[in-house]
Amino acid sequence: MSVFTTVTADDLQPFLKRYAIGTLVDLKGIAAGVTNTNYFVTTTHGRYVLTLFETLRASELPYYVNLMAHLAQHGIAVAAPIANLDDAYIDTLNSRPTLLVTCVPGQVIDAPTPGQCAQVGEMLAQMHRSAAHYHGHMDNPRGLGWWRDTAESVYALMPPAEADFLRRELALQAEADFSTLPHGVVHADLFRDNVLMDGEQVGGFIDFYYACNDVLLYDVAITLNDWCVTADGDIDAERARALLKGYQGVRPLSDAEVAAWPLMLRGAAIRFWTSRLLDFHKPAAGEMTFAKDPGHFHRVLSRHVARRDFWV
Amino acid sequence: MSVFTTVTADDLQPFLKRYAIGTLVDLKGIAAGVTNTNYFVTTTHGRYVLTLFETLRASELPYYVNLMAHLAQHGIAVAAPIANLDDAYIDTLNSRPTLLVTCVPGQVIDAPTPGQCAQVGEMLAQMHRSAAHYHGHMDNPRGLGWWRDTAESVYALMPPAEADFLRRELALQAEADFSTLPHGVVHADLFRDNVLMDGEQVGGFIDFYYACNDVLLYDVAITLNDWCVTADGDIDAERARALLKGYQGVRPLSDAEVAAWPLMLRGAAIRFWTSRLLDFHKPAAGEMTFAKDPGHFHRVLSRHVARRDFWV
Repeated sequence: MSVFTTVTADDLQPFLKRYAIGTLVDLKGIAAGVTNTNYFVTTTHGRYVLTLFETLRASELPYYVNLMAHLAQHGIAVAAPIANLDDAYIDTLNSRPTLLVTCVPGQVIDAPTPGQCAQVGEMLAQMHRSAAHYHGHMDNPRGLGWWRDTAESVYALMPPAEADFLRRELALQAEADFSTLPHGVVHADLFRDNVLMDGEQVGGFIDFYYACNDVLLYDVAITLNDWCVTADGDIDAERARALLKGYQGVRPLSDAEVAAWPLMLRGAAIRFWTSRLLDFHKPAAGEMTFAKDPGHFHRVLSRHVARRDFWV
Repeated sequence: MSVFTTVTADDLQPFLKRYAIGTLVDLKGIAAGVTNTNYFVTTTHGRYVLTLFETLRASELPYYVNLMAHLAQHGIAVAAPIANLDDAYIDTLNSRPTLLVTCVPGQVIDAPTPGQCAQVGEMLAQMHRSAAHYHGHMDNPRGLGWWRDTAESVYALMPPAEADFLRRELALQAEADFSTLPHGVVHADLFRDNVLMDGEQVGGFIDFYYACNDVLLYDVAITLNDWCVTADGDIDAERARALLKGYQGVRPLSDAEVAAWPLMLRGAAIRFWTSRLLDFHKPAAGEMTFAKDPGHFHRVLSRHVARRDFWV
């Protein structure tokens, strides 16, 4: 669950006076997410999501929050930050940096249809285009260097064959040169649980706190690895083709991107295999986290290695 | 009706490629408004309103459009402008400055309830507060000087007793000193047809093209003169009290504002009496306008002059 800091109506009423969104009607904790405290806040004007940041500092937040505002201004389906009466998106509540955003419609979908994958692909491409002029910049804190450092810290705890496999895959990634591929702002964590689907439409992308500047194709690979995956770590070809067709209807991939695509899918799998290995073998003290199965991304990666058809 | 410039699907499809809001599904002209061309545009992402500005120039638009964006960012219920991929709100279509905004929910209400008047008053006060840090500035082009000039141009065409009444009222306004009252951004035209009500809630304020910097109380008076009026030009006390209570729940009026209130209501009536006299007696050549009855605001003003209770 994700209420680390309790917020009461008595805390919230004076806080809401610094905003123009009416007075408090209801307040309810949200049991999702692993690093921040989230509440649904209903006021006389409508429903909002309140986030208290437990680990990110206020100085780190402008990149994410201004990005969400930028995307909302371009009509991208995202939760839009609400500014307070001092024109600041970030305020403070119970000693935590705090953000109010609009409530996007829809719910998380576990078993998406090809049509829904196409819509997510299309919106992702629109997001990539809309962020082309975004002024913020943040290097990817979880890029290849982080994967390697993380792998080094867990190799000794892994079955030797798996460790060797990961070593070889990381060596291959290190040899790749993605520097000439289109770069831009990526969400970098667009799993099914970070998208609300409103029927067949994208209700909203949420949780931008891994967003950064990186290769756009990397974002497509992360998204496809989750949205189009089967229970055994394989990729469903129909959903994969739909997601890529939706994406390319807005931003067609270049020849260089098509050539890089198989290795990019493997890199995107390594990103989450290594982070899950870390969470599994070295859980942070006191962190309330669901240690997700690292084996899942081992299987996803293995399937990609064996694959001959990549749907593009 | 308000389609002065025809827009076809063939015009719109390339235009929409400069935005991130999907592809065209439906296009329908809107028969409301008297100075701009408006269409409902439905895309694969949702429904928007397209406005082609027929008389305002692109250089005049930033004040209005940035204001709408500023208010939307603060959670005020307004149509939010959509930026194109060059990060501009104003684009060009069929040689006209053009704006896309989100579709706000609800419909125009002819006979509002006291509860709806309270919500409008509350949202108006929130709008006034939210705009306190808005950077744009525009003097009111339709202030006292404009009322007097306009009156001068129509006195000869009016029944002498009415002309004398208007002269006396203008003289009273000229003697008043409102300079120390709270100033800020005002909508200045918040009639019932510029608000969509979503049931009992404000769905959105629209049509900000008379917005300017002026006395906040003037905006309250304009709004009350329309929302709380009866067919014979009187004010319904229950609705008036509700609107003022809603407003003051967010921004209580100062003693100076309460003292200025009766004369402000008269000034707000003069604003629309004079503009309707002009439209009635001197319609602009070729302008497709509904000449509204100037006598209505003559009656509203007369009732205010005779009034002893002002609901504050």
